[in-house]
Amino acid sequence: MLPKSVEVALSGERYQVVYSIVGDGDSVPVIARQIAVEQTVEFPEDLLPLGDIPESIVGQVESITEISPRKWQAVISYAIESAGFELTQLLNNVFGNMSLHPGIRLEKLSLSPKLLSCFRGPRYGQSGLRTLLGVHDRPLLSTALKPMGLSPSQLGSLAYEFAMGGIDMIKDDHGLANQPFSAWVERVQYATEAIAKANAKTGGHSIYMPNLTAPLDRILEFARIGKEAGVGGFLISPGLTGFDALRLLAEQDEIGLPIMSHPAFLGSFVTHPNNGISHYALFGQLMRLAGADATVYPNYGGRFSFSQEECKSIVSGSTDSMGHMAAIFPAPGGGMSLEHIPELFHVYGKNVIFLIGGGLFRGTGNIVENSKRLLDAVQKVEFSRNGG
Amino acid sequence: MLPKSVEVALSGERYQVVYSIVGDGDSVPVIARQIAVEQTVEFPEDLLPLGDIPESIVGQVESITEISPRKWQAVISYAIESAGFELTQLLNNVFGNMSLHPGIRLEKLSLSPKLLSCFRGPRYGQSGLRTLLGVHDRPLLSTALKPMGLSPSQLGSLAYEFAMGGIDMIKDDHGLANQPFSAWVERVQYATEAIAKANAKTGGHSIYMPNLTAPLDRILEFARIGKEAGVGGFLISPGLTGFDALRLLAEQDEIGLPIMSHPAFLGSFVTHPNNGISHYALFGQLMRLAGADATVYPNYGGRFSFSQEECKSIVSGSTDSMGHMAAIFPAPGGGMSLEHIPELFHVYGKNVIFLIGGGLFRGTGNIVENSKRLLDAVQKVEFSRNGG
Repeated sequence: MLPKSVEVALSGERYQVVYSIVGDGDSVPVIARQIAVEQTVEFPEDLLPLGDIPESIVGQVESITEISPRKWQAVISYAIESAGFELTQLLNNVFGNMSLHPGIRLEKLSLSPKLLSCFRGPRYGQSGLRTLLGVHDRPLLSTALKPMGLSPSQLGSLAYEFAMGGIDMIKDDHGLANQPFSAWVERVQYATEAIAKANAKTGGHSIYMPNLTAPLDRILEFARIGKEAGVGGFLISPGLTGFDALRLLAEQDEIGLPIMSHPAFLGSFVTHPNNGISHYALFGQLMRLAGADATVYPNYGGRFSFSQEECKSIVSGSTDSMGHMAAIFPAPGGGMSLEHIPELFHVYGKNVIFLIGGGLFRGTGNIVENSKRLLDAVQKVEFSRNGG
Repeated sequence: MLPKSVEVALSGERYQVVYSIVGDGDSVPVIARQIAVEQTVEFPEDLLPLGDIPESIVGQVESITEISPRKWQAVISYAIESAGFELTQLLNNVFGNMSLHPGIRLEKLSLSPKLLSCFRGPRYGQSGLRTLLGVHDRPLLSTALKPMGLSPSQLGSLAYEFAMGGIDMIKDDHGLANQPFSAWVERVQYATEAIAKANAKTGGHSIYMPNLTAPLDRILEFARIGKEAGVGGFLISPGLTGFDALRLLAEQDEIGLPIMSHPAFLGSFVTHPNNGISHYALFGQLMRLAGADATVYPNYGGRFSFSQEECKSIVSGSTDSMGHMAAIFPAPGGGMSLEHIPELFHVYGKNVIFLIGGGLFRGTGNIVENSKRLLDAVQKVEFSRNGG
């Protein structure tokens, strides 16, 4: 027989999640209630309520609004206790089983104060990163060491040239892991030394951010090695490592370096507008909650498929008010080049990281020169914007 | 300037990945080549080949075949070194950036011997689980402790009743984490004691499999506590923890217990037939490669949306020849009940785990009785199949 009564009292504090639902007016309330049940008790509706299990443990449909023909938004609230005060269970609570249902998309999280307080969030955020890099008045510039196949010393040479050209954040391409042709520790050694040498010449503050696509049990070990070698931050792909690996890395005070998240392996969440997770929540809110200081995503108009509107929603998810969570940098990349700078500036303003990879190899192939031209272009636009 | 030459020689061993691509005859070869480039060097095509970087580092399009109007299958091979001999980078190599492209689906992996040898895979698989549970001639039975909101002692009482009724594998519902109303350690204590007591009475071998939706830095700690308390295995959701957490757990010899994977948070990979990852590769091959002994997924005809064909493809991905990887159990669940057993048996045969949750609370609500009826139904069908 089903036992009777919950022995631990709930606080009564709830948090809200916005879902969009595709369906007609009759089906949507049923689907909304199904989400609320499935994401919590996961029990046949007709057997609820169960003994004395309080209705408050079950998700509650707070509102349903039509936003366009056959498309609705439902706000569902959950007891904060059901999220277990940890990131893995929070993800489960908001979208675990529902991810399996076509026609339902997770749009937005509104976490309550007590739940937010369980997460450190970004250690640096926009203002911390600006201070660290000594860049206050223009977009930050980032590039990737690539292509896969170069040796650590070759990648180090590239890093030197990028830093000589004034690129702020020189990260690994996310495809560089710990392959035989590019051993992680060796690569970190070459790149950090190269960038330190360039900084000493230029007086700049360029940093190296190696990629942490490592086995889970070695991520923190690698991070410590990197920190000791003088890296300036890390790149991590939560789709590959799990969001909780980002959270874990971000929370380590002994490491305490900026983190850039990468969207690898996460695209399937956003490739269909009626399923998955919104750009806002996935690349904005969740990255930020887990502790990223900057969120990389494919820019509109490049070789990927995000629209300008979707990119702007990532900016919103990265910067909208979210308790104590600092605003983080959107970092659009993917097929961008120098010519796009004025337009990108118009769309993003100055609080953005422009991530330009292959584009810096174009023209004469002189990387220092190309990097300087990029920096120059960014400074010029900002200058003209300020009425100079 | 771009440096010249890779200093580490490649072995020449390659592995194959099958993608389906939506497009017309002219665009598909271009898209296939784009996959091959993007998943490896991620560099502008017109700048390739690059210095002396061997073409073999770039993915190679091996074949393109039309499978239906506007739908094609491309086989692309990668140098095994590009996958870095680790699971996180393998995922990245096969689908990192491509996940962001609509119209491309990862269908199947054909890993080469050296790459396969980097992964332990399932410790038990079908035959090991059968030996452990002492069940050789019928489908295995599993159920979930639920609903969220019950206390550890209440869940322990349920576990006792399920075990008295003869359910083989009694797992946590995947929504049970370490919430205040159901602390993990306490729950494990109650459930293991309850099941041991029932086994002592029935002479059975029921096991408890708690859910490991824990912070990454505590998963192995919890696993050790569970092992010490006498759990019989674990449930884990790679969508929440990352696939590498499953791999890490499965590889620990000191723990060495069976693992069941759960599809929570992974549904968006399969909700659209032209995007994401196939059921075969995601719930079959990847779970198995990472070390699951059984793969839970929503059965056709229940409250989720998988088709019978998709479910059968998961069976194939769980059992098709894959180097040294043992065949694992498909574990369909979600809205199943007693009445479905004969048909399910017809579709799945005996090498399956039937996962029935809420259904066991129906009728009189007598859980022992319902569980016995389920076991009886499964044994009867098998008996009649064998001509009895």
